[in-house]
Amino acid sequence: MACGIKKDGQKDLALIYSEFPAVAAGVFTRNKIVSPSAAFSRRNIRKGGTFRAVLANSGNANACVGPGGMDDCRAIARALGKALDISAGEILLASTGVIGVPLPRDKIVDAIPALTKSLSPTSWNRAARAILTTDLVSKTAQTRLSLGGREVVIGGIAKGSGMIHPNMATMLAFIQTNVDIEAEALQAALKQATDQSFNRITVDGDCSTNDSVMCLANGQAGNGPLQPDSPDYTLFAEALTEVCQNLARKIVKDGEGATKFITVRVQEAKSANAARKVAFSVATSNLVKTAIFGEDPNWGRIICAVGNAGVSLRPDRIDISLNGVSLVKNGAPNPRLPLEALRKKMKRKSIVIEIGLNSGGQSAEVYTCDLSYDYVKINAEYTT
Amino acid sequence: MACGIKKDGQKDLALIYSEFPAVAAGVFTRNKIVSPSAAFSRRNIRKGGTFRAVLANSGNANACVGPGGMDDCRAIARALGKALDISAGEILLASTGVIGVPLPRDKIVDAIPALTKSLSPTSWNRAARAILTTDLVSKTAQTRLSLGGREVVIGGIAKGSGMIHPNMATMLAFIQTNVDIEAEALQAALKQATDQSFNRITVDGDCSTNDSVMCLANGQAGNGPLQPDSPDYTLFAEALTEVCQNLARKIVKDGEGATKFITVRVQEAKSANAARKVAFSVATSNLVKTAIFGEDPNWGRIICAVGNAGVSLRPDRIDISLNGVSLVKNGAPNPRLPLEALRKKMKRKSIVIEIGLNSGGQSAEVYTCDLSYDYVKINAEYTT
Repeated sequence: MACGIKKDGQKDLALIYSEFPAVAAGVFTRNKIVSPSAAFSRRNIRKGGTFRAVLANSGNANACVGPGGMDDCRAIARALGKALDISAGEILLASTGVIGVPLPRDKIVDAIPALTKSLSPTSWNRAARAILTTDLVSKTAQTRLSLGGREVVIGGIAKGSGMIHPNMATMLAFIQTNVDIEAEALQAALKQATDQSFNRITVDGDCSTNDSVMCLANGQAGNGPLQPDSPDYTLFAEALTEVCQNLARKIVKDGEGATKFITVRVQEAKSANAARKVAFSVATSNLVKTAIFGEDPNWGRIICAVGNAGVSLRPDRIDISLNGVSLVKNGAPNPRLPLEALRKKMKRKSIVIEIGLNSGGQSAEVYTCDLSYDYVKINAEYTT
Repeated sequence: MACGIKKDGQKDLALIYSEFPAVAAGVFTRNKIVSPSAAFSRRNIRKGGTFRAVLANSGNANACVGPGGMDDCRAIARALGKALDISAGEILLASTGVIGVPLPRDKIVDAIPALTKSLSPTSWNRAARAILTTDLVSKTAQTRLSLGGREVVIGGIAKGSGMIHPNMATMLAFIQTNVDIEAEALQAALKQATDQSFNRITVDGDCSTNDSVMCLANGQAGNGPLQPDSPDYTLFAEALTEVCQNLARKIVKDGEGATKFITVRVQEAKSANAARKVAFSVATSNLVKTAIFGEDPNWGRIICAVGNAGVSLRPDRIDISLNGVSLVKNGAPNPRLPLEALRKKMKRKSIVIEIGLNSGGQSAEVYTCDLSYDYVKINAEYTT
């Protein structure tokens, strides 16, 4: 619903409610400056116990506002707990929006009765819209799997890492499932899924004060508690990863000013960490991202970013291809480059950069978008 | 002179020659992919001995061309050595320009007779122009100081870290001095000067395959060899740092598409390394750089970049000011922000971001430029 945090009457408040007590897991920003909303949720999840609700607001990040920020969280959780007849410790919070402006606590508290009344099992799309800031489209993903003869459902909503009006946006994702699992195992599965999804995307390399991924699991599938090292656990973790990857790709596609979806795939690295570092060095290079925007197969910038990753490597073993066309073999340019075919392939919306290091068996994949005029426009033309 | 590497008859070859044997020092790219030209110079400097000449070409980076790249270096050094009657081991090389295209060795070798004939002590500006690629202006700096009653001169030329047509540009600087100093002490002084200058600037965070800073010192000042721990050594090292900082600032001012010169000053950090990390995190943030381009005093993005530096800090102790106007005090916004005065100050060409961490006594200063439409234009609209 819209409670008036956003000035233009746009939706700015989303409530997720589980009719049954759920265990929770969370992965939070690594930024040293953490919004009290994220800190509140992180603390509650660490305390453990069961959870019933997630309340997210957009339009205000509740960050850098002094000690009042945590007071606001407590007051809002108290009011919501009262309305839902649950304890404040069973509530998770998330905020995204302008930094440095106190949360309009009263607007949120006053909206709680209407918000709880409007709860409905078919309102996922409304919730997905209410958490957006500068995103152009809402993002949802879901999957189903069978565990122990019972149907398990995993569904999630997310908002993207575009930054701007307001000052700062955020990556938020809320995943819900009816699986029966213990909190510790859920945390391990969510950590693994996040590492393979939200931690593999970059729009502009910045991590906000509010980034949060939270998952509630209420056990209603009746599959019997998942054992951490069972085949069923692996199936569940894979399905959770799939949902997170689906949401992560949607975030990149909706990156600010993005015209291309870029996959950077690094193969044959000495270690998984080396593969990840090389992939991120390429995916965060402004020079590579502007070249892709310009549809220029500029491998010099790609190999330069590879060399900048801070990873030891053999330059004369590097292979690079762009959308399947080999540009570099053993560190030297392909002398028979099919330039016309390549030019056509650069016009595609989806660009795959493959880098072979020929020095081991590890690989990594990272997703990003190009750097366009619109990125600069969106990020420069807003005046605080 | 122009030897035909660049297609449009622009100058592309510079020769620096010392009439007297000089000691040399060098600081080279940390990119794992190193141009044979830089590798050739690095190896010669490590071998030690005396040096007489630096030959630099623009228009071709001599990088990622296979083993032929080093063969070209040797052949060019042999030809130059013959023409100047010095050994190839007394020669340093540097290249900047397109990656992946073999150096036109014959064009360079054929130009050597004319190049050596055109040597003149008043041609610094011509040499400074001949090393440019996409730079808009040539960059020179010099200073004089008195050591032991003798006049010591330090002069340098540099080219900037704009990247593009050709594929990749490079930071090159050549410093010459008549000081009498041993090679090891010169290397220490150059390393220190580089750390305080060229290693404190960033245009887009990328470090090229060819970045090189080299210094020749031929002892003709007659000051008697500088002792590494003498007051005179300190004076010389400071003067060398001043020349390097002067060149470094000129490189940032000429950054691709730059409309603003940004100084990021971090104070009261726990360690010098923490100060440096925070300063670079802010100076390389696309969100901060686009905000400055848009003349938006968006401190939310600055504090977010501070938190992203990977340095432990107390968020509630952070102070931020922009061109002298306090925006954030103890992690919270200044409630009496003089917005009109601030708006005026944001229109200045020079923007100073001051960040106080209030957790120690160390500081760091880093220079960068804003991220404008022209940066994207310059880097996207060139097609290989």
